[in-house]
Amino acid sequence: MHLKIKSTLLLLFLGITFYAQEYSGRGEDINKILTNIDNFSKAYVNAEYDELTLFYSTDGKIFPTGADIIVGHKAIKKQWILPKGSKMLSHKVKPEEIKIIDDYAYDYGYYQGSSRNKKGIVFTFKGKYVIVWKKTDNDWKIYLDIWKRIDDK
Amino acid sequence: MHLKIKSTLLLLFLGITFYAQEYSGRGEDINKILTNIDNFSKAYVNAEYDELTLFYSTDGKIFPTGADIIVGHKAIKKQWILPKGSKMLSHKVKPEEIKIIDDYAYDYGYYQGSSRNKKGIVFTFKGKYVIVWKKTDNDWKIYLDIWKRIDDK
Repeated sequence: MHLKIKSTLLLLFLGITFYAQEYSGRGEDINKILTNIDNFSKAYVNAEYDELTLFYSTDGKIFPTGADIIVGHKAIKKQWILPKGSKMLSHKVKPEEIKIIDDYAYDYGYYQGSSRNKKGIVFTFKGKYVIVWKKTDNDWKIYLDIWKRIDDK
Repeated sequence: MHLKIKSTLLLLFLGITFYAQEYSGRGEDINKILTNIDNFSKAYVNAEYDELTLFYSTDGKIFPTGADIIVGHKAIKKQWILPKGSKMLSHKVKPEEIKIIDDYAYDYGYYQGSSRNKKGIVFTFKGKYVIVWKKTDNDWKIYLDIWKRIDDK
């Protein structure tokens, strides 16, 4: 009985460790990145595409569906704009790890959300991502942004 | 006529700049990463899955199709093994940029290849990727590996 309790506690402990987020770097850098992650989702849901684009560095790159790597603000903005009549209902990014290395950081985790098309049909989606951040003018900008839906090849 | 030649030369110059690879870091680090990239492809084509797995750090992570993030050598090896009767015919990775930052590096670019299934049907594929490398015991290991086929969502 005593052993059984210990095993359970050990499993709980391992479980918590396994699912915890790992943030490594100065607090203000980590906080800035976490704030940018949340505000990116807000801008997306509010269809504020100019604001959304500004989360990327001017030489930022995204790796979208059905296309080569897309570079720079103008092309990135165009890529994010939803079809007319569609709306992003929710968007949430959950980092598993963020590590600051000098003026760069890597960040990976999961995202999920829901959107509605012009016919009113609601879709949910979830996936995983890797972002490389770059510190620019005392802010953190997305330099590389690649994501993959759970059902992607 | 003179102007026309100048325009052509300018276009050629821009073209070369645009398509050039950008490598930033010590030569020996860049060369080690480039060698590992090539040898990864060779191991994959030769179905040497133990060797393939050793290109990842022990805490390495891949972001495969239809699954959550996969962590560690055992799970990564299992993920890479092709179905019985299938063969990887060719695999080539072309980095667009590699940048070393302390004991880490980011690397992104394109990949392409071809495989044959057990019915003898040949498939070609191409896509884009981001890798985060980690320097470990004077070698460079893949810590994060995410790829996306051109037709992915």
